[in-house]
Amino acid sequence: MRFLHTADWHIGKKLAGFDLIEDQRAVFEQVKQIARDQAVDAIVVAGDLYDRALPSEAAVTTVNEMLVELNRDLALPVLAISGNHDSAVRLATGREWYQATQLYLNTQLSEAFTSVTIDDTQFFLLPYFEPFAARQYFDDDKLTNINGAMPRVVAEMVAQFEPDKRHVLVAHFFAAGSSHSDSETLVNVGGLDSVAVDDLAPFDYVALGHLHNRHALNMDRIQYAGSLLKYSVSEANQDKGVYIVDTETMTREFIPVVPEHDVKTVTASFETLLSSDYRQTMNTDDYLAVTLTDVQVIPNVMQKLREVYPRIIGLGRKQQVAIASQLTVTKRHLAPMTLLAELFEEQMDQPLSAQQQKWAERALRAAKEAD
Amino acid sequence: MRFLHTADWHIGKKLAGFDLIEDQRAVFEQVKQIARDQAVDAIVVAGDLYDRALPSEAAVTTVNEMLVELNRDLALPVLAISGNHDSAVRLATGREWYQATQLYLNTQLSEAFTSVTIDDTQFFLLPYFEPFAARQYFDDDKLTNINGAMPRVVAEMVAQFEPDKRHVLVAHFFAAGSSHSDSETLVNVGGLDSVAVDDLAPFDYVALGHLHNRHALNMDRIQYAGSLLKYSVSEANQDKGVYIVDTETMTREFIPVVPEHDVKTVTASFETLLSSDYRQTMNTDDYLAVTLTDVQVIPNVMQKLREVYPRIIGLGRKQQVAIASQLTVTKRHLAPMTLLAELFEEQMDQPLSAQQQKWAERALRAAKEAD
Repeated sequence: MRFLHTADWHIGKKLAGFDLIEDQRAVFEQVKQIARDQAVDAIVVAGDLYDRALPSEAAVTTVNEMLVELNRDLALPVLAISGNHDSAVRLATGREWYQATQLYLNTQLSEAFTSVTIDDTQFFLLPYFEPFAARQYFDDDKLTNINGAMPRVVAEMVAQFEPDKRHVLVAHFFAAGSSHSDSETLVNVGGLDSVAVDDLAPFDYVALGHLHNRHALNMDRIQYAGSLLKYSVSEANQDKGVYIVDTETMTREFIPVVPEHDVKTVTASFETLLSSDYRQTMNTDDYLAVTLTDVQVIPNVMQKLREVYPRIIGLGRKQQVAIASQLTVTKRHLAPMTLLAELFEEQMDQPLSAQQQKWAERALRAAKEAD
Repeated sequence: MRFLHTADWHIGKKLAGFDLIEDQRAVFEQVKQIARDQAVDAIVVAGDLYDRALPSEAAVTTVNEMLVELNRDLALPVLAISGNHDSAVRLATGREWYQATQLYLNTQLSEAFTSVTIDDTQFFLLPYFEPFAARQYFDDDKLTNINGAMPRVVAEMVAQFEPDKRHVLVAHFFAAGSSHSDSETLVNVGGLDSVAVDDLAPFDYVALGHLHNRHALNMDRIQYAGSLLKYSVSEANQDKGVYIVDTETMTREFIPVVPEHDVKTVTASFETLLSSDYRQTMNTDDYLAVTLTDVQVIPNVMQKLREVYPRIIGLGRKQQVAIASQLTVTKRHLAPMTLLAELFEEQMDQPLSAQQQKWAERALRAAKEAD
């Protein structure tokens, strides 16, 4: 069989105040198209459907629609788990009814041991869980971390393996590329809340969610899908998409999606950014983290940039602004009021008025008294 | 057929800070037992399943369990609508799946015109709706209130009546016992956001939710179920329960439920309330709104009462407390500090210490300066 592996939708996520829900809907249309084009037999969603435990009504509407579209409109089995960003309780609403149309949605550890078999593959759907859930389920107070609990979890799954099937684990955790024998490395890499990849050896494929970078692990059979979109500036250079996994050949293929508005970092001078030549090289509607190469003060810089690039999500300087560096070197001897007057004139292109000067003097006096 | 008519569960409701969820679970067990004993063919829930648009996880768990127990464990058709306390969006989660097991859950006006037929009865499930939803659905800007919209809603339902069936409307609104011809009365009774009962004439039965008093209307075929529990002191004298409606005879029977902790008003003296004779006449675990007949000041009165009656939800006095009335008559001439010292001694059974006297004097001085 062939399934589509996606994760970390984070529906309802905002990026520097920008609501991403329309971007999420748009990219989800591509995911559906991929599912159709690839004629997959099932969809795997490895957690973090929502961005918050208490999602907005718009986010609830969107996730509900996404599940309806995958499971009812496309009539595909859906194998989903809750991630650490989901409320297990809220996400579980309707669960008892969903299975009738092969929408399997696990939100509790105890549910992970009832496998779902589709064609040649036996799926184990392990939601994100806290150590206390493992202590409760296994009735063992010594299970104080995920790393210690996973061998127990896996053993209980392995005990149920149907020998003639492929075995796929769907999970949402931090998997660290090291073994138990080298516990020092494990602690260094992911800590006790990470899972040692060696523990996952019994599975033919582990469809992971949690880390947004699909390259986070470099392993043949343990794979992060990556997030649906770039959800921070640090993800600007990551490619996003979904995996198509073939359980007959046990191979996978990455199929990229193209966001309506990309997340990019830009480093240029203010003048360059506003020049028409440069603008033509840009998708000005992208989410941009801008680093200015300028050293001088630019009045109302964000407002001016946003007239051209409406989705600026960050603004920084390559070098310290000139006024600051000059200050330390050449202007340190100036009286505070003189300095303030110079700075004002530089920024506002006009000197302080008499009234403004009075206010400034009063403020400086107050600051001095407070010293 | 026979159906059970309930409404206004308000799961997650707090009463004067007391979480009612265990009381709600307990009384719901009785509702289930009634459904079994009466061998009903369906359950009608006329809105306000939740108390808040954004319910707690405990409330979500409880409502989810209640629907599972009615629809899946008892295997009964459930006909439910959202009320004004529910979030239509959140409550609708899973809706597309629910119908497979005859759980019909309407949260949008447009859904009200797809009827559900069970045995001899055609049900129309009309959720709580705002006038704008009617304007949108009927594409008519003149529908500015519920009163104006209802004739249109009912007409569209009547057009779909199967003539050989009973016709039952499930709705959540304020129905006012007056006719359109007497608009003055209508406005007096319920205003333009109420529905004139004459508009509901085409139905054999109207199963209502919204008002918590089942006696709010005195009509044969238009009935409020009343709330699951007493949800305010003003409901202390109301009986709570469910209706069993027989569509063959078009008769209904009220079957009461008994709360684990009742809501009661008590008027007595402090001494009486704490006397062992009186306590034996009381269920001291009830939610009590206490009115004291005493006139003197009673130090730490709430704390002392709660040692015996842990669920006090209100505390008042039948008469003004003596100190206040005496004050106006005999003590008006006293200096503020003298008055304060007397009051303190009366309440605390000890005089002000030297330190307390200093603080009091300082406070009075500050109050005088602020005058």
